[in-house]
Amino acid sequence: MRSVSVVGIGETRFGRFPETSLKELILEAGTKAIANAGLRKEYVEALFMSNFSGQPFSGQGHLGPLAAEVLGLGHIPTIRIEGACASGSLAFRQALSAVASGMYDVVLVGGVEKMTHQSTEAVTAGIAGASDIDLEAGIGATFPSIFAMIAQRYFHEYGNVRDAMAMCAVQNHENALLNPDAQMQKRITVEQVKNGFPIADPFTIFDCSLVSDGAAFVMLAATDVAESFCPKRLVEVVGCGQAGDSLTLASKGSMTTFAATVRAAHQAYSMAGLSPAQIDLAEVHDCFTITQIINTEDLGFFVKGQGARAVSEGKTAINGQIPINVSGGLKAKGHPIGATGLSQIYEIVTQLRGDGGPRQLKKADIGLTHNIGGTAATCVVNIFRGR
Amino acid sequence: MRSVSVVGIGETRFGRFPETSLKELILEAGTKAIANAGLRKEYVEALFMSNFSGQPFSGQGHLGPLAAEVLGLGHIPTIRIEGACASGSLAFRQALSAVASGMYDVVLVGGVEKMTHQSTEAVTAGIAGASDIDLEAGIGATFPSIFAMIAQRYFHEYGNVRDAMAMCAVQNHENALLNPDAQMQKRITVEQVKNGFPIADPFTIFDCSLVSDGAAFVMLAATDVAESFCPKRLVEVVGCGQAGDSLTLASKGSMTTFAATVRAAHQAYSMAGLSPAQIDLAEVHDCFTITQIINTEDLGFFVKGQGARAVSEGKTAINGQIPINVSGGLKAKGHPIGATGLSQIYEIVTQLRGDGGPRQLKKADIGLTHNIGGTAATCVVNIFRGR
Repeated sequence: MRSVSVVGIGETRFGRFPETSLKELILEAGTKAIANAGLRKEYVEALFMSNFSGQPFSGQGHLGPLAAEVLGLGHIPTIRIEGACASGSLAFRQALSAVASGMYDVVLVGGVEKMTHQSTEAVTAGIAGASDIDLEAGIGATFPSIFAMIAQRYFHEYGNVRDAMAMCAVQNHENALLNPDAQMQKRITVEQVKNGFPIADPFTIFDCSLVSDGAAFVMLAATDVAESFCPKRLVEVVGCGQAGDSLTLASKGSMTTFAATVRAAHQAYSMAGLSPAQIDLAEVHDCFTITQIINTEDLGFFVKGQGARAVSEGKTAINGQIPINVSGGLKAKGHPIGATGLSQIYEIVTQLRGDGGPRQLKKADIGLTHNIGGTAATCVVNIFRGR
Repeated sequence: MRSVSVVGIGETRFGRFPETSLKELILEAGTKAIANAGLRKEYVEALFMSNFSGQPFSGQGHLGPLAAEVLGLGHIPTIRIEGACASGSLAFRQALSAVASGMYDVVLVGGVEKMTHQSTEAVTAGIAGASDIDLEAGIGATFPSIFAMIAQRYFHEYGNVRDAMAMCAVQNHENALLNPDAQMQKRITVEQVKNGFPIADPFTIFDCSLVSDGAAFVMLAATDVAESFCPKRLVEVVGCGQAGDSLTLASKGSMTTFAATVRAAHQAYSMAGLSPAQIDLAEVHDCFTITQIINTEDLGFFVKGQGARAVSEGKTAINGQIPINVSGGLKAKGHPIGATGLSQIYEIVTQLRGDGGPRQLKKADIGLTHNIGGTAATCVVNIFRGR
């Protein structure tokens, strides 16, 4: 299979834009990505779209040809991909495979979500469709309560890490202050997190990721083709892994290790020939604060049970040993579901190109993205290296 | 890229099963396909699921891990793909690409839809999400009215083909009588079709495809691997094409030629090194009777404007020059959206293996499937050859 590189990125600001349409979000982010690649849109051979809630929240399916029409891409093949909160990374993986196989040389991957025009109740019900509606959502086990059970079990096995969970939120908010695309632009404290509006014990509102509107696009090209036109530092996709797990929490082997993360990460590291210690920065799925801690352990950055201490010691902060969610993460940059995985890639590519402005890391040559769907029932891990 | 073959097929009966769950439909069809391949399920490396309406009609998204859990497939990577009524063929194409590229040796593709538990109004609104909801569905232009406009324009350009449209429905019902999985088991006449309950002039209820529950699965393997285990005649995928078009009817270059069909067919024929005259049978998307006629022209089986006469002359009947929709088609076998494209493949593989029973064709060595989404905004064409 051929080497593939990211050649263009574009995203909207994430936030509450209830008056902005799916088409407008797609147009802004897609146009930016095409321009960023320094390529005329006529060279795009296929479009892979990621979206979770267009059907339940806006009545709009079939986003492939809709996006192609909005962006003026003509008769190219399009597709919509959905895998809950991992939709964006799944679309990226399909696009990667299509270029790596030689089927296409240049493809566009886009993710979009429009959520804030719906009521909190409708959003909760719609997102619950990423769990098992018969066995979980239908009996009231929505995601905050599922992940709160995971947190309680983590406390049981490894001790109470409430303060470190709060520190995750604090750090992600700090990072978001440096990211103009981030939804949250507000400094918070550990005490504020712990005393926030209660959601599902131990979570307060500050432990939960955001409901957001937004879009993110990534242009991929065969590396040998990209070298002929891309004006920016090429960012090669050197590793990609995907694994699954049971949809239901009750069927999982463990509540405090995400088997899908472990397996997807193993595949990605093997493909890249790299170890966790060689990663300079990572965007890690933080739908809840405990999720980030567990995932940083399952990705191999810290020993199981030590992820919380690593946060408290500053190891995951922007100037730490392995900066996590420099963008602000799902917690503070925002979580427009279909766009999330692609926005993670947006951040890594921005850092590897040295375009991070006030949040630019000193050393950023190898970056990782990690994205899960549902109760870690789907996981995709990507590794990128600047050339 | 490697040669890929179909090694297993399975489907449920199509019909009105409002008490049957998505999980039950998946379990039945998926289990049949795995057994049909003569392979233990442990060999399945990835699952590609197709579904259109799980979110709006059942509140259930994230069907990849749901299906993997139901079928006991463990931690394999899964995905859900949606491209309106072409979802099944899009999932097949992604699976084909993944095996052809060498990423996997054996994968399962499944499609499922559960529709009849919803009201007619809800189904109409849900399906309208495959059009542009701002510019079409939102102003009352649902699919029957859009395709009725296409029929009226066809009449204007090529003459009134009302009788031939009715004959399409009659032939597809005749074929369905020979297919135990078909929803319709009823002989009809041209007069019945023309005098049926009016839907959108010139369509009566008998010109429209069905609202159905059902599932269909297909197992794919690298041909060289498949030769070592498959007990049945191998059915090689020799051609695959995909193209798009504007989502809206108003933006299309022509109302009486589907540009996406023409382009996808051209790709598939080129890849296979075959011409339309070499195809022994085809499953052609017949969401409405006029759609079948236009598509058989755009696939190159008949000269533009002559598709209707071909039907009247019996050329598309089961004993004709190019039998179309021997299964009964969307019109009479049924149209459980996510399963449709895979059920088309089920029929071609059944015929190429000689397993068609009372509907078995005498010569069936090369077969074609054609599947569109929305107003032909997405199209996939596959060509299969028995080895």
